[in-house]
Amino acid sequence: MPSARPQGNLFYAQSGGVTAVINATASAVIHTARAHKVRVLAGRNGILGALREELIDTSKESAATISALAHTPGGAFGSCRVKLKSLDADRAKYERMLEVFKAHDIRYFLYNGGNDSADTTLKVSQLAAEFGYPLTCVGVPKTVDNDLAVTDTCPGFGSAAKYTAVSVREAALDVAAMADTSTKVFVYEAMGRHAGWLAASAGLAGKGPDQAPHLILFPERPYDEAEFFAQVKAVVERVGYCVVVASEGIQTADGTFVADAGGGKDSFGHTQLGGVASHLAGRVKDALGYKVHWTLPDYLQRSARHVASETDLKQAQAVGKAAVEFALKGMNGVMPVIVRTSDTPYRWKIAAAPLSEIANHEKKMPADFIREDGFGITDAARRYLEPLIRGEAPPPYGRDGLPKYVSLRNTLLERRLPDWK
Amino acid sequence: MPSARPQGNLFYAQSGGVTAVINATASAVIHTARAHKVRVLAGRNGILGALREELIDTSKESAATISALAHTPGGAFGSCRVKLKSLDADRAKYERMLEVFKAHDIRYFLYNGGNDSADTTLKVSQLAAEFGYPLTCVGVPKTVDNDLAVTDTCPGFGSAAKYTAVSVREAALDVAAMADTSTKVFVYEAMGRHAGWLAASAGLAGKGPDQAPHLILFPERPYDEAEFFAQVKAVVERVGYCVVVASEGIQTADGTFVADAGGGKDSFGHTQLGGVASHLAGRVKDALGYKVHWTLPDYLQRSARHVASETDLKQAQAVGKAAVEFALKGMNGVMPVIVRTSDTPYRWKIAAAPLSEIANHEKKMPADFIREDGFGITDAARRYLEPLIRGEAPPPYGRDGLPKYVSLRNTLLERRLPDWK
Repeated sequence: MPSARPQGNLFYAQSGGVTAVINATASAVIHTARAHKVRVLAGRNGILGALREELIDTSKESAATISALAHTPGGAFGSCRVKLKSLDADRAKYERMLEVFKAHDIRYFLYNGGNDSADTTLKVSQLAAEFGYPLTCVGVPKTVDNDLAVTDTCPGFGSAAKYTAVSVREAALDVAAMADTSTKVFVYEAMGRHAGWLAASAGLAGKGPDQAPHLILFPERPYDEAEFFAQVKAVVERVGYCVVVASEGIQTADGTFVADAGGGKDSFGHTQLGGVASHLAGRVKDALGYKVHWTLPDYLQRSARHVASETDLKQAQAVGKAAVEFALKGMNGVMPVIVRTSDTPYRWKIAAAPLSEIANHEKKMPADFIREDGFGITDAARRYLEPLIRGEAPPPYGRDGLPKYVSLRNTLLERRLPDWK
Repeated sequence: MPSARPQGNLFYAQSGGVTAVINATASAVIHTARAHKVRVLAGRNGILGALREELIDTSKESAATISALAHTPGGAFGSCRVKLKSLDADRAKYERMLEVFKAHDIRYFLYNGGNDSADTTLKVSQLAAEFGYPLTCVGVPKTVDNDLAVTDTCPGFGSAAKYTAVSVREAALDVAAMADTSTKVFVYEAMGRHAGWLAASAGLAGKGPDQAPHLILFPERPYDEAEFFAQVKAVVERVGYCVVVASEGIQTADGTFVADAGGGKDSFGHTQLGGVASHLAGRVKDALGYKVHWTLPDYLQRSARHVASETDLKQAQAVGKAAVEFALKGMNGVMPVIVRTSDTPYRWKIAAAPLSEIANHEKKMPADFIREDGFGITDAARRYLEPLIRGEAPPPYGRDGLPKYVSLRNTLLERRLPDWK
């Protein structure tokens, strides 16, 4: 059917850590491309699919399945942690990718990821231009870390933020009920190696100094143990208990990650996996004598589609749709970004931003989002964060009480090229 | 208004670890008592409220607030971890409690907890009889551990089980997407020091040997590291990744808790908080070389009202209602229990069971719920567990994107007795 696909195929790949809504972006990409009669080939395990010529033929999936993708967490085609280096250093890989694209009539390249992926997308676009191969390259934003430049927020973040705020509010009610005779200090470890966006979102769970979370530890502020102990003690004496949210990336003034203090080898020489929450809880127990509990939600926080933010879901779908539309218009080297046009009422729109302004930048939290004492969020942070967790978008549930998450067939296209070494 | 409360007051207290639905039981207790014109006095921080004469006057709360309790996790009046010993050993405490009950015209004692609470309820009832004080004592079941005898299940367990199954299914999709280049083994730590009920409920997340969770570790089976490693390796080689759910209570054949192997002191003499998941993940990393991640949901699993089971919620309310009705009928020394009358369709009813059959017993998982190889659940377990997580009962959410959990005034009655030392 050449007339049904006059413009060549579209290659879509997922990159880096997956989120609760990256498949919603994929769903929008495929639906939008289908509406334009463009076939989507998805990379199996992200960009590795392009290198290995493992291309998933999404036309084998029903419209209902593609719709169900929008409420399924994880990465339906597989993702990967592979960062391509410069064109010079990794030239063979970039060239291989273009060969695969040529062999399968791929004229559009959509790469769904963070900073690194934006960089890769840009480089592929540069090499295609150099080779005179007509390829339109569009980045698609995604990351629970919320650290992409230009865009107001990153799809995936809002849902992880909602998970965080809801979980902290719930656990705090538990701790409050038990504090008289049991746990006095509870530590929640939030993702965020470089920026405290998810830890900050926990701040939405309460208002005022006596509501949990009482203390938030940000990687943007140096961690000082004595000051932390003093704060914990003051909160416990005033409130009766203390809920702490700590970003995994907190560091002491000399740049040492606190998480690294919690690990190492035990007396048998066995690896001791630690983390920030276990370390802080242990230290509070030793130094202040309080009964402690702690949680490390880990992947749960970025896969919790069951408590996704409706705002986040809509934005994830909007960037997927816009990415295809931009690509089909020939807008090369751009990324659809979210532009906030109003806080109250919250309004946003999609715009195109040059990948060069996004690639390899890292957006930190603005300094005025962190309270002066360093242990909480400001009203400015609330104004920014609150709309992002607004609205519920639960998945459908089956009679078995579980969300009806979809599995794809992931049928691979027949290969046309020799193996990639 | 003596005519409005002809029968005296009802004392209700929450005991032990709270759950996502213990307040739903409280809500049903108060609504039912109000319908019978009986005032409910709640113990502040559980039974300590009776000892300290800290009695919360629930008549100060509006009907809307009491209804909202049904969707609020935690323990609204405070709970406590206090186990009363025998009548001989703790006689002063039991007598003090009766004094407080007399001073406030309390003729009904409802104690909402687990095995220990059933025992306390029974002893209070015995002492009241001995003293000739007319007091009707009714236990009310609650525990995420699901280890109460007689009752088919325990309110609180179904919601924690649903949280577990949903979270494991979601995290498994994340791991599956990343396994090619990142995490190959993921370990989820479930509550359950003595029985593997919550670990077993994770088994509902998948079916067949290739669906997550691939391996479940139960406290009912001795943990053998070499065998575990072999199983993990086999799963990774067959499926590409391995999701492990481990009960916090797993022990080696000599009775050593595996969790204790993960803790201890680090080289600075600091307490190293460990746990089962961190230990297993560290050992897998060392021995098999796989990239690992792990999660410790801790209190999140028992406070996650946002993903509560509708079955569990209804049962939590039903036992609250029945407890009041039993009490007003003068049924002393009993507990409303859940009787399963049919698996398919799932049907249940409430019956009264003597506290003497429940107190201090611990229900283990039946041996035929664990697969012969020890690493999964059987069809019998599925038939039992699946109805318990069925149905959704989300809380209402506010415009801020957070569940609308209610806070009570918790107005204390004026005290009539001297301080309790």
